[in-house]
Amino acid sequence: MNDITVFPTIDDIMAAHQRIQPFIHRTPILTSEAINQIAGCEIYFKCENFQKVGAFKARGAANAVMKLTEEQKVNGVATHSSGNHAAALARAASVAGIKSYIVMPSNAPEIKKKAVAGYGGEIIECEPTLIARETTLKEVVARTGAVFIPPYDYLDVIEGQATCALEMWEEGIPFDTVMAPVGGGGLLSGTALTSKYISPKTNVIAGEPEGADDASRSFKAKELIPMVGPKTIADGLLTSLGKINFEIIMEYVDDILTVSEAEIIEAMRLVYERMKIIIEPSCAVPLAALLKNKERFKGQKVGIILSGGNVDLGKLPF
Amino acid sequence: MNDITVFPTIDDIMAAHQRIQPFIHRTPILTSEAINQIAGCEIYFKCENFQKVGAFKARGAANAVMKLTEEQKVNGVATHSSGNHAAALARAASVAGIKSYIVMPSNAPEIKKKAVAGYGGEIIECEPTLIARETTLKEVVARTGAVFIPPYDYLDVIEGQATCALEMWEEGIPFDTVMAPVGGGGLLSGTALTSKYISPKTNVIAGEPEGADDASRSFKAKELIPMVGPKTIADGLLTSLGKINFEIIMEYVDDILTVSEAEIIEAMRLVYERMKIIIEPSCAVPLAALLKNKERFKGQKVGIILSGGNVDLGKLPF
Repeated sequence: MNDITVFPTIDDIMAAHQRIQPFIHRTPILTSEAINQIAGCEIYFKCENFQKVGAFKARGAANAVMKLTEEQKVNGVATHSSGNHAAALARAASVAGIKSYIVMPSNAPEIKKKAVAGYGGEIIECEPTLIARETTLKEVVARTGAVFIPPYDYLDVIEGQATCALEMWEEGIPFDTVMAPVGGGGLLSGTALTSKYISPKTNVIAGEPEGADDASRSFKAKELIPMVGPKTIADGLLTSLGKINFEIIMEYVDDILTVSEAEIIEAMRLVYERMKIIIEPSCAVPLAALLKNKERFKGQKVGIILSGGNVDLGKLPF
Repeated sequence: MNDITVFPTIDDIMAAHQRIQPFIHRTPILTSEAINQIAGCEIYFKCENFQKVGAFKARGAANAVMKLTEEQKVNGVATHSSGNHAAALARAASVAGIKSYIVMPSNAPEIKKKAVAGYGGEIIECEPTLIARETTLKEVVARTGAVFIPPYDYLDVIEGQATCALEMWEEGIPFDTVMAPVGGGGLLSGTALTSKYISPKTNVIAGEPEGADDASRSFKAKELIPMVGPKTIADGLLTSLGKINFEIIMEYVDDILTVSEAEIIEAMRLVYERMKIIIEPSCAVPLAALLKNKERFKGQKVGIILSGGNVDLGKLPF
């Protein structure tokens, strides 16, 4: 039984979707004639930037919290994160009525700390290094007995993120391609599972920044290559691909396309100007990949997940 | 018969809504739990920032163009505008297959000129003064025989703008209050007509910048006082209130509340951060007025029209 990861089934994903209903919005799918004309295909944007806590992360965190046993819930949950997973887990715990301990680097943006505190999460600050984060988390877990909920390399989280694509497919659109960004791989692996279960012939394609291209390199090399020194404006995609995520991606994802920083910013600007919605730079990566490879998507129906909308408005790249 | 303006009836407004269907989106109504908590009431945002040409102006221009006789259509339409009405009229004319002549001040933003040209409008540049705009427009009308479609002080335009509130009421929400910004008064007068026809007991309240408060002063003085030297970030509200608009406002609007620049920017930021949508500063004015007068709206269901989303992303005030 060792070393064999049992992936969530479509029934598991549908059950997760029911389970997390009290925690999430059913986000809308928006289209833009102007962007379709530029792209040469029909794009359906799944707007997880309108999701609770401003990102798809609300889904995975809620699912993981709701799957805890009553015994596990007693001592709460813990994680280390400077980003959306921190807020998502604090909020999920709060809705479920349990404690949450969030280890955050001392240099995490004030707005992120405020969000976690606002949801009732207990913040434990540490030095801004991965070692310090992991060590501090271990101490917190040892002291409190809380259950560690990792941000992406964790089946219950992946199962939760998979519910986003489920809602897309429920709209009845026969997607030729479904696209998501890839960082740790939680969203991409969940999206791939759902999409291939429902429509095996649909292509599942990721977009990834050239400056954090470990998933693309791992995909080509067929072995997990950790990211060293990632650098990209797409701050949600700085993390290295997770182990379980990599397994799912190798089995269910068709391709990973990389894009430059300029291409990300151009796609981001296009969404702001033409759709009048606010997205994180990470969200623009799949659209940038599509626009860079128009011929490949010509005339297709393409679903793109806009993963989140938490951006520092004072630091827009235009 | 002179001096008596016959306002559009609810049947006229419903007919206008049918007439302009090929030209417009039915825009969504969005809500935000976070903003409701801050405001102490239930706010329903009608998202005209997602409208064609990025603003409600698409409605009035389309209605005015569609109501022309076949004979009038032959020579096309003309207007002077540096803003959303220019693009809206050019687009309406293009969809209707007729010519449009748009007099624009030489200092109009390039992006606005590009939009007009993109819709096939013929741009005639003039000096950036009101006199030059009006003189140039007269020359264009004399030369081409085109019909002048004013931006707001014009019954067919008001009738078109009134269809926005019609869509809001069709959602079945029993609004206690409906709010809109006021500049020239096209949107406000149309919104007031529709809302008072459908629900006489609903309050219709406008928001206006302190730096361009001619509508507020005219409303109190019960006579039309033109604006001199307006100054506000809400660039859509710089114009003076129109004559017909003032007549309708005096009969159907309950109050006009003014707000400071800081209050406008704070409300704008709230919408960007909590709703993840892009709005023009003008849109934030009614929300700012509500937040400044929370007690007055406590527990109410309030409809707020977000009038447009055309903003220079490089010049956000935060």
